[in-house]
Amino acid sequence: MTSTIRVTVWNEYRHERKNPEVAKHYPEGMHSVIAAALKQAGIEARTATLDEPEHGLTQDVLDTTDVLIWWGHMAHGEVQDEVVERVYQRVLDGMGLIVLHSGHFSKIFRKLMGTTCDLKWREGNDHERIWVVAPGHPITEGLGEYFEIEREEMYGEHFDVPAPETLVFISWFSGGEVFRSGACYTRGRGKIFYFRPGHETFPTYHRPEVQRVIINAVRWAAPTPAPARVFGNVQPLEPEK
Amino acid sequence: MTSTIRVTVWNEYRHERKNPEVAKHYPEGMHSVIAAALKQAGIEARTATLDEPEHGLTQDVLDTTDVLIWWGHMAHGEVQDEVVERVYQRVLDGMGLIVLHSGHFSKIFRKLMGTTCDLKWREGNDHERIWVVAPGHPITEGLGEYFEIEREEMYGEHFDVPAPETLVFISWFSGGEVFRSGACYTRGRGKIFYFRPGHETFPTYHRPEVQRVIINAVRWAAPTPAPARVFGNVQPLEPEK
Amino acid sequence: MTSTIRVTVWNEYRHERKNPEVAKHYPEGMHSVIAAALKQAGIEARTATLDEPEHGLTQDVLDTTDVLIWWGHMAHGEVQDEVVERVYQRVLDGMGLIVLHSGHFSKIFRKLMGTTCDLKWREGNDHERIWVVAPGHPITEGLGEYFEIEREEMYGEHFDVPAPETLVFISWFSGGEVFRSGACYTRGRGKIFYFRPGHETFPTYHRPEVQRVIINAVRWAAPTPAPARVFGNVQPLEPEK
Amino acid sequence: MTSTIRVTVWNEYRHERKNPEVAKHYPEGMHSVIAAALKQAGIEARTATLDEPEHGLTQDVLDTTDVLIWWGHMAHGEVQDEVVERVYQRVLDGMGLIVLHSGHFSKIFRKLMGTTCDLKWREGNDHERIWVVAPGHPITEGLGEYFEIEREEMYGEHFDVPAPETLVFISWFSGGEVFRSGACYTRGRGKIFYFRPGHETFPTYHRPEVQRVIINAVRWAAPTPAPARVFGNVQPLEPEK
Repeated sequence: MTSTIRVTVWNEYRHERKNPEVAKHYPEGMHSVIAAALKQAGIEARTATLDEPEHGLTQDVLDTTDVLIWWGHMAHGEVQDEVVERVYQRVLDGMGLIVLHSGHFSKIFRKLMGTTCDLKWREGNDHERIWVVAPGHPITEGLGEYFEIEREEMYGEHFDVPAPETLVFISWFSGGEVFRSGACYTRGRGKIFYFRPGHETFPTYHRPEVQRVIINAVRWAAPTPAPARVFGNVQPLEPEK
Repeated sequence: MTSTIRVTVWNEYRHERKNPEVAKHYPEGMHSVIAAALKQAGIEARTATLDEPEHGLTQDVLDTTDVLIWWGHMAHGEVQDEVVERVYQRVLDGMGLIVLHSGHFSKIFRKLMGTTCDLKWREGNDHERIWVVAPGHPITEGLGEYFEIEREEMYGEHFDVPAPETLVFISWFSGGEVFRSGACYTRGRGKIFYFRPGHETFPTYHRPEVQRVIINAVRWAAPTPAPARVFGNVQPLEPEK
Repeated sequence: MTSTIRVTVWNEYRHERKNPEVAKHYPEGMHSVIAAALKQAGIEARTATLDEPEHGLTQDVLDTTDVLIWWGHMAHGEVQDEVVERVYQRVLDGMGLIVLHSGHFSKIFRKLMGTTCDLKWREGNDHERIWVVAPGHPITEGLGEYFEIEREEMYGEHFDVPAPETLVFISWFSGGEVFRSGACYTRGRGKIFYFRPGHETFPTYHRPEVQRVIINAVRWAAPTPAPARVFGNVQPLEPEK
Repeated sequence: MTSTIRVTVWNEYRHERKNPEVAKHYPEGMHSVIAAALKQAGIEARTATLDEPEHGLTQDVLDTTDVLIWWGHMAHGEVQDEVVERVYQRVLDGMGLIVLHSGHFSKIFRKLMGTTCDLKWREGNDHERIWVVAPGHPITEGLGEYFEIEREEMYGEHFDVPAPETLVFISWFSGGEVFRSGACYTRGRGKIFYFRPGHETFPTYHRPEVQRVIINAVRWAAPTPAPARVFGNVQPLEPEK
């Protein structure tokens, strides 16, 4: 059932090419590190980036993607509405979507959430401790009761998203804030997971626990061969009285 | 606290002026019937319609509206995006929103839900029985364990909305379908209630139970003087270690 | 991951031995039919029944059970509290639990729900149509948008359970009622699914769609190797300021 | 509607009489301080304590109580099962219940939750910051985006309760933990709110924000004159086909 999940890891891929501090951690882009971790877990993974034609997300690519992973930050506005609409339709039709870190402000996440997805932030020296609050949920497989990231950008409440269907993680930050860091949603037939960590100036996606969560989330978000959804004008199923 | 809720009842107000069958039930529009019921319950109610300037929903009107009620059907596409955006911001800021019947396909509801809001339908002779599944919820005040509508348009599952935060009603239809007929959501600081009944060719909004639900929903959705939401770059609350 | 799920199908197994009408459908008990369906799907399945020592649910049996299926009706009161407690602890520790039909009134389900689990019922000639309201959920795999059972006992709202974390199915009954027929819960690390159909005088558990749902639910409810839960007095993780 | 809510504040009332450190803050018991705050807000409030006959919770007292507040700690085991059952039935029938701090381990809360309600704790010098994550919820009325308690007992995750229907507050602790500090539930027709703060050795219930939350919660949890719930054997509502 979970044998051949096909993932496309989408990355804006601008910071890595412009900022040596970022390139140091991700010489070939964050997407390459994430895709490599997925492959090692036996998951089919390819990548796509903003500056490719159609952002690398042609209809054909999406039609053969079970789970799409999304990282964006400085160029959300450059993502074409047509591609956003294409991704949106695929999510409603069952494709899983994992939105990472600053992807909270992406067009696709905001469209699916129906809110601003705004939050507090601080690029500093915060220490983050990510607590599991839904032990037993598939996304927590193999984790301890919490894991830590020595240095990360802080994201704080209020996080303007609908209440998660399942809240999996809550972050503690040394600067005094908390954040709902792992949040599950369903839209149409598609499963969506938002996962907080991953500021570009830190080597966060090299961390085993972070990779583990992404791998677990891919498995959780993979499509179910589920009932087709029928809409529109229909005849009665029962005889009229 | 609930003493002076100010409601604006918005109606497309086209069917009533074009179709004598509709005008028979609602000579002055559905909005007038709903507003009258609210007033009788001690709630401040005014109306606004599509063909007024800015659809009657100026910034000033919205700023002095606690709860907005929305009925639309044949002219969803004529609602200006600028007005939709204005309503959207007010909902996130705390204004309650009650979406009635065919308003499921309105721009504002789709934007807030993040889904297509599509469904099955049949204009026929269906008998509808609306079951309370959340007794104790404020929206059920004064109702029995179910209420009936002799003839209504059928709406059937699958209803493409996010899983309600609270599911209050489920409809049974004589033609064989079910529908999640009363659904509560929160977006930002705003409370949203979708309520199914109200096809224009039936006198549904004259029914006491239907009016009762709308009155209850207005009280439930009225804004709470709640914490301002602070977003953006912030300083640490705790000293750095 | 889902390769070797170990299921124990527990059945009261009294109706089948006392009532020829029931025995006709289930000469070796409902548990045997369900276990056979699971085995055919590649799932390890054994059975246990009320009149075995310790109801067949020794600590050892439970410790080697990933998912427990429960059918009971006329003898809920005969289930020993000690065994109920044992099952309860295993659920909190991660064992999946699937409660069928009249199991709604079992000691274990009531204890886990925290409510009476009462409902309406009618043993008659109701026709049931079970609608999927969460397409995309793993428990709906391979189903159509609804499936039907020609004759079943009616269960009607209000069903006194906490609001499901995920509502998967809603039943339509020809007698005029609706029911939340497929409901997911989490308690501790354990996943719980309540599934309505299965009155003993009908051959319900022979039906392919019903078997399909039970198989899907077993896969969904199988334990995740999830974080141990740590409780009690702890030392600070951060230095005192 | 909210004009005459009748509250009973129940307190174990042992610590205050045995421990001078506690008595210093609460010479007449925590219940007296809470009841006084409620009265000042125009709410009818009386008190009841463990060592009164029937713990002060006779059928008559409960029948005239709209919302019951519960604080217990060292003597949970001394609360008679008969009284617990009486409270339980009243909650299912619509009485609101607010469980404070160490009341998480009370018989009534565990019975209603269906879980152990266990958690981590530390009696130390933790600083607590309680963040609002559901702005717009009635329980947040009049608060800021967070409030602080200089010194409190720490409660940490994992908190073994079902996922809250609405999560209102998350606590940050200086020692490194987080906690779901304000959690809403429904059981039967009754609304339940768990609120974390209130260790007996600190003057927590004298704090204006803490009192404010309790007042808001009382208003939120007050019963709705809701549909009676009908259970058992029923006749069809529709003619047999």
